[in-house]
Amino acid sequence: MPAKILDDISHRRYNPLTDSWLLVSPHRTKRPWQGQQEGAAVTTLPEYDPKCYLCPGNSRAAGDKNPNYEQTFAFVNDYSAVKEQQPDYEVDQSSDDLESLLLRAQGVKGVCYVLTFSPKHNVTLADMPAKDILPTINHWTRLYANHLSPSNPLSAVAAQLQLPISMEEAPVPKDNYRYMQIFENKGAAMGCSNPHPHCQAWTTSTMPEEPGKELVQMAKYRQQHGRHLLADYIKLELAKEERVVWQNDSFVVVCPWWAIWPFEVLVLPKRHVRALVDLTADERLQLAEAIQEVTRRYDNLFECHFPYSSGIHQAPLDGTPEEIENAYFHMHFYPPLLRSATVKKFLVGFELMAEPQRDITPEQATIRLRACDGELYRNKLS
Amino acid sequence: MPAKILDDISHRRYNPLTDSWLLVSPHRTKRPWQGQQEGAAVTTLPEYDPKCYLCPGNSRAAGDKNPNYEQTFAFVNDYSAVKEQQPDYEVDQSSDDLESLLLRAQGVKGVCYVLTFSPKHNVTLADMPAKDILPTINHWTRLYANHLSPSNPLSAVAAQLQLPISMEEAPVPKDNYRYMQIFENKGAAMGCSNPHPHCQAWTTSTMPEEPGKELVQMAKYRQQHGRHLLADYIKLELAKEERVVWQNDSFVVVCPWWAIWPFEVLVLPKRHVRALVDLTADERLQLAEAIQEVTRRYDNLFECHFPYSSGIHQAPLDGTPEEIENAYFHMHFYPPLLRSATVKKFLVGFELMAEPQRDITPEQATIRLRACDGELYRNKLS
Ligand SMILES: O=P(O)(O)O[C@H]1O[C@H](CO)[C@@H](O)[C@H](O)[C@H]1O
Ligand SMILES: O=P(O)(O)O[C@H]1O[C@H](CO)[C@@H](O)[C@H](O)[C@H]1O
Repeated sequence: MPAKILDDISHRRYNPLTDSWLLVSPHRTKRPWQGQQEGAAVTTLPEYDPKCYLCPGNSRAAGDKNPNYEQTFAFVNDYSAVKEQQPDYEVDQSSDDLESLLLRAQGVKGVCYVLTFSPKHNVTLADMPAKDILPTINHWTRLYANHLSPSNPLSAVAAQLQLPISMEEAPVPKDNYRYMQIFENKGAAMGCSNPHPHCQAWTTSTMPEEPGKELVQMAKYRQQHGRHLLADYIKLELAKEERVVWQNDSFVVVCPWWAIWPFEVLVLPKRHVRALVDLTADERLQLAEAIQEVTRRYDNLFECHFPYSSGIHQAPLDGTPEEIENAYFHMHFYPPLLRSATVKKFLVGFELMAEPQRDITPEQATIRLRACDGELYRNKLS
Repeated sequence: MPAKILDDISHRRYNPLTDSWLLVSPHRTKRPWQGQQEGAAVTTLPEYDPKCYLCPGNSRAAGDKNPNYEQTFAFVNDYSAVKEQQPDYEVDQSSDDLESLLLRAQGVKGVCYVLTFSPKHNVTLADMPAKDILPTINHWTRLYANHLSPSNPLSAVAAQLQLPISMEEAPVPKDNYRYMQIFENKGAAMGCSNPHPHCQAWTTSTMPEEPGKELVQMAKYRQQHGRHLLADYIKLELAKEERVVWQNDSFVVVCPWWAIWPFEVLVLPKRHVRALVDLTADERLQLAEAIQEVTRRYDNLFECHFPYSSGIHQAPLDGTPEEIENAYFHMHFYPPLLRSATVKKFLVGFELMAEPQRDITPEQATIRLRACDGELYRNKLS
């Protein structure tokens, strides 16, 4: 148990993954709420929507037609934030000193993929048994493998991979990139513009800020202690138990000590896994199980379609052997709901200007999420 | 002009204030939007609401009664995130090494104030002429002055202040604190739970992350170049003009080179000002003018009550003389709207997991905001 006093006093907690602090105010959920409420999301969607650009057989914005896929399907976003082809940015030669100090920019190339989880328009990961989530994990793994730079030590691992999805079934890039960020925005509250279950994978020629910070911290820790930061953290959490929501043989789900979002969780492999391609077939299924547990518990918590953004951090596509070895695969879930299906935690004024702030402790969140096991609430209704 | 090419290609820009990068994808606003839309906020509120806990003469949650104030009124939030009195957090003696490395916490004391801008329930800063915003700035200044640690070199400056609001009219803390974060959450989309015009000021015994990072960067820059980072930046922006939205003799409003939010602006004093107490009476009025310009242009942009979070960064309440001298007063505005009164930019999956991403360039935003001068749209309607 942490010093019990942290349930009652305002305090800061340190996030060793990003080297930053956040403010925890455990007593603060008592305040009344007259602000914005989200509409309770009890939408009844059809299994197939002829207007959806993700349903099998439909046409997309740029005119391409989706195949009649049966499990997952990946394509390049018609409105990508980054592109494979664009002119190079050359820094203006006329720039004086101040300009090169204070108006710095660099060009970014890349590809933005969309990947559907299912041909069915009206399901979510929470509705899908682990075996139906597995094809998505296989597809992520293939996509990641297809993008590995030939000089990456993980390329050799990828070459040995036995996956039920061939290289050709997943997109192949024209170029080498530095990083692949796989993420899902679930629910309108998290900016998702289409309820058809899907995630995105953005590859970029530059290392994005967040995984970049984490890799630096992981490198520092390993250099200082000779062990992996997250391996040590898992060891500690498994011993303490109080932030462990769920586990199977290969993965553990914790509300991390440094969680910002009310019911934030971290999915961690129990052994050192650098990236998706390091996972065995059995571990991929166990990861599917972990994702199913998290998303089902989330929906059960407030009996609603629980919004979140999730994302995978893993080894870069290209990097020094040292950097690849330091990387420790993990998956973050950041859900905004705080008190009910309709009341969000807003990360606004103080959080944006000063420091992230949360209103319940991660230990309290863990207790709530542990209690949400059992069947998906909506299956019990029907 | 920046290399014109940045209007067309995806690129990253560097924020020297926080030492971080963001992704800019100028072509990305073309994508269709089927996601969440905000309700167009054409609420008609009464000038006085008997149920509002901020209106003059009303009772608050904890039972206190508001005075019949005529301009501004400050009080301690009944549901504060931090408190003046709480037990100290002493690190668990039994903790082994891993625990003290990976489960770090520290107690935080402080006070959370609420400060109303006007007795009228139904106005916003955009509706108020600069002379009516001035009392708020005077109140901020007094509040900040009341909290300065006696050892802060700014205490002597504060002692000489001639303000139309006395020490006793603003709250006085029981203790010394490290930092005061003044911020406003405007609009339900930014988590504001009461439309009565108000801001908050949270003082804490610890330095929050964001201003802490900025102060480190300001210190580094000054050490390396012998000048203030923001002084150099203003010089550059005034010369280039393309990101300048508006200016008066003392302040300039820019869409910063490194803006994350679609119509983010930075309000900067043209001379080195460390904190509110450094401003002359005339500069305080000019700051009121700048705030009025920003908020009116925001409302004019999409003809709506434009949501935002704003906040002031300035010298800490307590700090080394060096740190106080390095501080450069400024005010950030972070507004979420992107395309219309109802379509927000969501900073979600990629932004949370990887790196902030924006869809229009700051130069494009500047052009839009420049065109929004003139009378407040809703005054023209009536
Ligand atoms: O204090 P308020 O206005 O009730 O609350 C609002 O601002 C706070 C400070 O940014 C946030 O922590 C809350 O999530 C938000 O709803
Ligand atoms: O690509 P989508 O799903 O249309 O867009 C969503 O996710 C993106 C990546 O996190 C964000 O940049 C957008 O603001 C959000 O609405």
